[in-house]
Amino acid sequence: MTTLFEEVFVMTLPTTTKAIGFYEGFELKGDQPGFQDLVLPMPVLKAQDLLVQVQAVSVNPVDTKQRQTQVKTTKPRILGFDGVGQVVAKGEAVADFALGDMVYYAGTTKRPGSNMAYQAIDSRLVAEKPTTLDVNASAALPLTSLTAWELLFEKLGFTPAPGANQGQKILVVNGAGGVGSMLMQLAKWSGLRVYATASNQNFDWLMQYGADVTLDYHQNIAEQLRAVDIVNVDGIAILYNPTNYFQMAADLIKPFGHIASLVDVQTLPIGLLKPKSASFDWEFMFTKSDYNVNMASQGRILQQVAQLVDQGVLKSTLREVIPGINAQTLTQAHRQIEGGHTKGKIVLSGEF
Amino acid sequence: MTTLFEEVFVMTLPTTTKAIGFYEGFELKGDQPGFQDLVLPMPVLKAQDLLVQVQAVSVNPVDTKQRQTQVKTTKPRILGFDGVGQVVAKGEAVADFALGDMVYYAGTTKRPGSNMAYQAIDSRLVAEKPTTLDVNASAALPLTSLTAWELLFEKLGFTPAPGANQGQKILVVNGAGGVGSMLMQLAKWSGLRVYATASNQNFDWLMQYGADVTLDYHQNIAEQLRAVDIVNVDGIAILYNPTNYFQMAADLIKPFGHIASLVDVQTLPIGLLKPKSASFDWEFMFTKSDYNVNMASQGRILQQVAQLVDQGVLKSTLREVIPGINAQTLTQAHRQIEGGHTKGKIVLSGEF
Repeated sequence: MTTLFEEVFVMTLPTTTKAIGFYEGFELKGDQPGFQDLVLPMPVLKAQDLLVQVQAVSVNPVDTKQRQTQVKTTKPRILGFDGVGQVVAKGEAVADFALGDMVYYAGTTKRPGSNMAYQAIDSRLVAEKPTTLDVNASAALPLTSLTAWELLFEKLGFTPAPGANQGQKILVVNGAGGVGSMLMQLAKWSGLRVYATASNQNFDWLMQYGADVTLDYHQNIAEQLRAVDIVNVDGIAILYNPTNYFQMAADLIKPFGHIASLVDVQTLPIGLLKPKSASFDWEFMFTKSDYNVNMASQGRILQQVAQLVDQGVLKSTLREVIPGINAQTLTQAHRQIEGGHTKGKIVLSGEF
Repeated sequence: MTTLFEEVFVMTLPTTTKAIGFYEGFELKGDQPGFQDLVLPMPVLKAQDLLVQVQAVSVNPVDTKQRQTQVKTTKPRILGFDGVGQVVAKGEAVADFALGDMVYYAGTTKRPGSNMAYQAIDSRLVAEKPTTLDVNASAALPLTSLTAWELLFEKLGFTPAPGANQGQKILVVNGAGGVGSMLMQLAKWSGLRVYATASNQNFDWLMQYGADVTLDYHQNIAEQLRAVDIVNVDGIAILYNPTNYFQMAADLIKPFGHIASLVDVQTLPIGLLKPKSASFDWEFMFTKSDYNVNMASQGRILQQVAQLVDQGVLKSTLREVIPGINAQTLTQAHRQIEGGHTKGKIVLSGEF
C-alpha cells in the first residue's frame, strides 16, 4: 500500500519539532515569562491522526483567553486553532488523505494546537485547503468558518444550500469580526437578507462581506431597522457579549425564532423570550471535539467551505500576514487581538 | 349549501349567553368581588369561527395566574382555556366542521374563553373530540396535550411518530402535573425512555402515565440516575420553576441537547450550557394564537391526540368532575389549583 513517495516523506521526518508554548497563564505586560520557543519530541500519531507540517496559523480570541487563564502546567501548553500545512505522515486508519495533501483545520483545545512545526491532528477535523487560496489566506478560515456555519445551519436552523432561505432575514450583531465576516457571507449565499451591525467606519467591510443593510451599533438598532421597514427578523446572531443586546433581540425576534451567541456570559434575562416561545442557542465550536460527538461534520463543513471559496462565493477574511511563526510574532498577534476592534484575521506564516 | 339541519340549529339559538366573568384581578380571599355569573350578548362570529355550546371546561394554572393579574376592565374578562361542546353555528369560511360536531380546543387568551355557554372560537384551533371519551374526560386534554406535544416535538426536536425516538432518553421534571402526565405518554409513544420526577407518593401516577423510571424530586436527581447507569439524557423538560433545576439540567444534558421549560422566570444561568453547545427553549402554548403564526397546527395536533386516545395510546388525566359551570364551582376549582400538588385535571361539567 505504501508508495515510494510516502516512504520518502516518512524517512525524512525529524525527531523533534519546534513549538511555541508556555507553562502558566500570563498577561501581555512584558514583565512575566510569556511565550517560549521550544523544541519538543515529535508527536505520536493515533490511528485517525494526520501529522501536518504547519506553514501558516491564525490567532483567534480563544487563543488570548486560553493564554490568560491557563493553569500552571509542567507540560508546555501549545495554542493555535487555525492551521494550514502539508500532510507528512498519517495513522493507519486514515483513508481519505494522502501524504503531500495541503490541508486546513481548526482542531481541538484538548491536544497541542497549530503553534508547532509538526502537529498531530484528528483527520476527521481536517479538509483539503481551498485550491484557489494560498496558505495564508486559507489559515484565516477554519475556526471562524466552522463557527459561522454551525451557528447558522445547526443552531439558527437555516438551510445550508444556495438561496435556500430566500425571504428570511437575519440580524448579525458585530458583523465585522472574524466570525461575523464569514457568517454574513454564508448567510447571503444561503438566501438570507443580512442586517449587520458595526461602527460606521466598518460599513464598507460589512458590505464587502455580505451585509445587505448596515446598522450603527452606537445607535438604536430597532429604530434603524424600522427606518427600512423591518419590524422583526427570523434569526439573530449576537457575536458579542449578549447582555446589552438581549432586550433588543427579544423585541426583534419573530415568534418561535432562535437567538444564538458565542460570547461567555453567566446569566441572561431569558424570560424575555417566553411570550414568543423563542429559543436561545450557544454555538461553541469545540463542543464536538471536547465530547467526541459528530467530529467528522467539521471536516465536511471545511470541505464545503473550500468548495465555496474555490467557486468564488466566499472570500478569506485575511487582513495581515506577520512573517515567521515564533514567540515574538505570536506575542505581537495576541497583542493586536487583545487591542480589540480588529476586523479580519491576523496570520503568522513561514518558518518556525 | 345550507342544509335543513343547519337551519334548525341556527334558528334555535338564543340571543344571550350565560358566562362567568370578572372585572379586575383578585385573590381568593372571599372579601373581594370574585367571579360573577353574567348574561352577555351572543358572540358575533368571524368568518373562520365556530360557535360552540360549551358542555365541559377544565381549569389550568394559566387561569389562576390571569385571574390574579387582570387589570381593571369595563368589559368582563372570561377565562377558560379548555372547552368541549357542540358546534351550533359557524362562519362562512369554515369548511371542515359541521353543525352538531362535538369538538375540543384550548383556544386563545386574546378572546373570551370557554367559561361561557356559547363561545366563539377560531376553527383552526379546534378538532373533533376523541370518540371514545365523554365530554368530561375530553375537557381535561387540550391545553396540556398541545403544550406537551409542542414542547416534545417542536421544541426538544423529537420525532412525533410511534417508536421514532427509540434509544433516546428524556428527563421530565414534575411528571405528575397536568402537562407532565400528557408529555410522558407522548414521549413513551414516540419511543423515548422516560425518566420522571415527582414526590414518591406520586410514583404510581408517574408509572401509569408513561414513566419508565421514577425519581424522587426531594433527592439528588443525578445520583438517582447514576444508580440506574444513566449519566446523561437527550432532552430535558422542566415543568416547574427551572431556577433550582438548571445546574442539574446543565450537568445531565447531552452535548447539543435541548432543555425546555414553560414556567415564568426572569433570568437563568444560561452560561452553564455553553460548554455543551446546548439550547434553552420556551414552550408557550398561546404564542401561535397571540401572533397568528401557524395556528392551524394546533387543530392538527388535537386531531392526532384524539386519534391516539381512540387507539388506546393516550389516556385522559381527568381526576375530578365538579358538576355545574358557574361562579361558585369555578371558584372551587381555582382554589384547588392554587393549593398546588394536584395531579390530574379538574373539570367543570353540565349546565351554566
